[in-house]
Amino acid sequence: MRLSQFHLHTSKETPAEAELASHRLMLKAGMIRKLAAGLYTWSPLGLRVLRKVERVVREEMDAAGAIELLMPTIQPQELWEETGRWEKFGGQLLKIKDRKEAGYCYGPTAEEVITDFARSELSSYKQLPVNFYNIQTKFRDEIRPRFGVMRAREFLMKDAYSFHLTDEDLDREYRNMFDAYCRIFERLGLKYRAVFADTGAIGGSASHEFHVLADSGEDAIAFASGSDYAANVELAEAVSPGQRPDAGEAMRKIDTPTQKTCEEVAALMGIALQRTVKSIAIIGTDADGNEQFVLALVRGDHVVNEIKLAKLPGLGEYRLATEAEIADHLGSEPGFLGPVNPRRPIRVIADRSVATMADFVVGANEAGYHLAGANWGRDLPEPEVADIRNVVEGDPSPDGHGTLGIARGIEVGHVFQLGRRYAEAMKCTVLDENGKAAVPTMGCYGVGVSRIVAAAIEQNFDDNGIRWPETMAPWRVAVCMINPKKDAAVSGAAENLYRELNAAGIETVLDDRGLRPGAMFADIELIGIPHRVVVSERGLAAGTFEYRARDAVESENLDHAALMARLGA
Amino acid sequence: MRLSQFHLHTSKETPAEAELASHRLMLKAGMIRKLAAGLYTWSPLGLRVLRKVERVVREEMDAAGAIELLMPTIQPQELWEETGRWEKFGGQLLKIKDRKEAGYCYGPTAEEVITDFARSELSSYKQLPVNFYNIQTKFRDEIRPRFGVMRAREFLMKDAYSFHLTDEDLDREYRNMFDAYCRIFERLGLKYRAVFADTGAIGGSASHEFHVLADSGEDAIAFASGSDYAANVELAEAVSPGQRPDAGEAMRKIDTPTQKTCEEVAALMGIALQRTVKSIAIIGTDADGNEQFVLALVRGDHVVNEIKLAKLPGLGEYRLATEAEIADHLGSEPGFLGPVNPRRPIRVIADRSVATMADFVVGANEAGYHLAGANWGRDLPEPEVADIRNVVEGDPSPDGHGTLGIARGIEVGHVFQLGRRYAEAMKCTVLDENGKAAVPTMGCYGVGVSRIVAAAIEQNFDDNGIRWPETMAPWRVAVCMINPKKDAAVSGAAENLYRELNAAGIETVLDDRGLRPGAMFADIELIGIPHRVVVSERGLAAGTFEYRARDAVESENLDHAALMARLGA
Repeated sequence: MRLSQFHLHTSKETPAEAELASHRLMLKAGMIRKLAAGLYTWSPLGLRVLRKVERVVREEMDAAGAIELLMPTIQPQELWEETGRWEKFGGQLLKIKDRKEAGYCYGPTAEEVITDFARSELSSYKQLPVNFYNIQTKFRDEIRPRFGVMRAREFLMKDAYSFHLTDEDLDREYRNMFDAYCRIFERLGLKYRAVFADTGAIGGSASHEFHVLADSGEDAIAFASGSDYAANVELAEAVSPGQRPDAGEAMRKIDTPTQKTCEEVAALMGIALQRTVKSIAIIGTDADGNEQFVLALVRGDHVVNEIKLAKLPGLGEYRLATEAEIADHLGSEPGFLGPVNPRRPIRVIADRSVATMADFVVGANEAGYHLAGANWGRDLPEPEVADIRNVVEGDPSPDGHGTLGIARGIEVGHVFQLGRRYAEAMKCTVLDENGKAAVPTMGCYGVGVSRIVAAAIEQNFDDNGIRWPETMAPWRVAVCMINPKKDAAVSGAAENLYRELNAAGIETVLDDRGLRPGAMFADIELIGIPHRVVVSERGLAAGTFEYRARDAVESENLDHAALMARLGA
Repeated sequence: MRLSQFHLHTSKETPAEAELASHRLMLKAGMIRKLAAGLYTWSPLGLRVLRKVERVVREEMDAAGAIELLMPTIQPQELWEETGRWEKFGGQLLKIKDRKEAGYCYGPTAEEVITDFARSELSSYKQLPVNFYNIQTKFRDEIRPRFGVMRAREFLMKDAYSFHLTDEDLDREYRNMFDAYCRIFERLGLKYRAVFADTGAIGGSASHEFHVLADSGEDAIAFASGSDYAANVELAEAVSPGQRPDAGEAMRKIDTPTQKTCEEVAALMGIALQRTVKSIAIIGTDADGNEQFVLALVRGDHVVNEIKLAKLPGLGEYRLATEAEIADHLGSEPGFLGPVNPRRPIRVIADRSVATMADFVVGANEAGYHLAGANWGRDLPEPEVADIRNVVEGDPSPDGHGTLGIARGIEVGHVFQLGRRYAEAMKCTVLDENGKAAVPTMGCYGVGVSRIVAAAIEQNFDDNGIRWPETMAPWRVAVCMINPKKDAAVSGAAENLYRELNAAGIETVLDDRGLRPGAMFADIELIGIPHRVVVSERGLAAGTFEYRARDAVESENLDHAALMARLGA
């Protein structure tokens, strides 16, 4: 492609509405243009990148044996009523009435449509297993669409749905898709993690999210230094740090007149925050609806994990205790709570880290005081122990391989074992080997194709613009001409190089727009072309081209052979 | 592709709801499956064909210098209000409210969106000309969706929009797109016509439709035997057949007691229908609103053309005259009307063919009688002459090259000069060479990608199924194995041939499903694979493959070299 024949429309202005780097850079590079809230036109430049992602996804899905089809974007209300999701899906479902007042929605996903397809097309176990996918526009009516295509309302998604007679076969295909996703993100050149997306309690294989790592990611991911274990921080297990030391101090009351937080108390006492214990007073409700006062304890430097807490018996939908309830049970006011000597008998749940502490500091249940040198079994009863905190950097990995690091990620893929609920709700059956109707079990596998484009930028940019991985770049090489109008030899040599590279299968763009070098280079950097070759009068005289990789600090003068070798031609 | 790894789902039943062959065959072949009225899922087989069409369209658009982008399917109401089309477009526009009650539609076309894009992205004449296209899902809320994907509500369309400073440049691009469309349909292997889509009065270049020819086509097209002239029958000019002969008979009254139509009178008299004249009594309204009685005359074998008639002065929105009006002006009752001796002076408009007749037969304005041997200038005044009839097969071509044939066609493409109305309404301007704001003129160019699939079938099928042109076929060659389980040599040879053909770039499918030959061949014929090769024990023993082209009556036994040559490998 010659840029003079293309529509490149970069901007020097930094768009005020863009909070994320990817949003800002996609607008500046002219990859997308906003049509309305959460609706973007992909410009010719943007579409080139989008199509590259789409192509890799398609190739890997095909290679993994999935079969492509194409479902409509508009889906009938009746199908969604069969699964009960017409009401349950919530406000993200864009509901539509046609001219005959029949109800439809713009598909945000396609479990209903594919299950309807399957119940018509699949009749025998011999047709299983099968994995159908499509790469199709989806719509989710986000309350607050933002971050450009990162959270657009209309977006491009690859969704796949597999059908199996047995759970074992679903496991096999789940692993097959898991591997295909790894190949997709590897080929795209992205740093990513496959993250356990459930608690891991049931084998952990029922759901994984694929995250592109980026500092701006919305999700915090814990990953092991010694294995490929990764999990959402909120779901990662915090293991016990080891044995509890023996008690070394006597318990004593500390004067903390205005010190209510662990940080304040530790600072006052001149001790590490890790020696303090935070007490959170909550009210849980058991299965019979009875309320119960509970004191949850985590180490001063830890954060309580609400998801883990809510999973404990009697704590479903718990709430924070009121000041009156605290006064009633502990005889204290907030800021000085603790598990020692409550006014009434209470349930105390200590995080695993707290249960292994000795000589710790807690609130004294008396305004203005804390207790130091507290010890389990001596100063207060042994507590109920559970994992109720978020993991932190340096925690041991729950799989025993090294320690956990924390990274931020952007979710771009999801593999999920749906089981039989859609097939059951929609009466989808096939005849098994014995001629009996069997409900197939299903897997579903999504990739946010358009989101990957934004996520890749979040991971790969600098002050000058985007730094595309090779596979995603709109072109791999840009050939720039200096003063082409003045010097026919320059434009001739640039043309030749441009043709030669494309003929060698290296996708190359020729910048023949006749811009000044500064403006030209700024554009090429902004739009993130991995390799830049400058053809100039001076270079031609010396028999060299000026080559610079997008991520290099310096450019190099290379003769033709060296240049071709560098570009892999 | 091995069919055992694919999802092929043909049906022996003929779907009752399918009126058209393409609809019936696409359902039987399992190319599409209905999701709801006018909404179809493209199965893996159907999608293969759809993608082939899409690819040819994309390649030819790229080759013609158009630039691909991707616009959202959902478009904001405000833009449509700027052009006034929110109200004017009618019931086909699927209107949507989002969760915030903001108005949107599902784009049936994208003039507004592209013009909005252009007014943001284009600022200088230097960026012109430019032609943006996208291949994107569209929606038209048809009152009566039918014929499968031929008239679906959701469909895949290629729409392109070009921007130009001058009308001359628009003309140039219009011709460029016209040529690209010809290449598209030629490459797809379809018989087609480019049809003048307006009256031809203003140069005829403002709009052309591209029709795939098929007997089932909704539109009748007149085309010249000696040139590429083609026009919708209703718009094709009927030229004068030549000079009027001299009068040879005296006018006389004929007794036609019950003969009211030209056919009946000609039969009674034993003369050719071409010697009779049909009189149609109508009431026209002139610009001032005054009504006028008019007698329109066409030859007995011709059909009056209401579009042409309505374009004559004083005939805008004409209506048929009532019996009372006829009696008042002609003194006759319907069935015996004529231009000779009316009761009051009337306006008579004769079709060109009628104006060159001599010794013709007309109604006598007296119940039960006609006049024979009538002649212009002698028996009645010379008439006002105009082209007011539909052309028929054998008429001279209006461009002077040969005669007209009539064919039926399916509209699958449209090129159109929009002019400046969208740019003007949406205040889209660029600075011209003099730094003055100029409103660009626009062209638009559509191709119904999904419709082409159905149209191609209408043109290419037989009793056994679809007969795909090579370019559109899901695979070019099917390799079928006879009794593969019984004979490992057969399956080995078939596998080898399958791999060899694919390696030679000939897209080949292997039917390894293990079906009986009859069922296997029926499927391969139904889904329209152009070339079938059968590998059998008997053939292997003889060193031959049984080859049959989809459109051949007999199969041939070819050795390996001859087979490869026949398949172009």
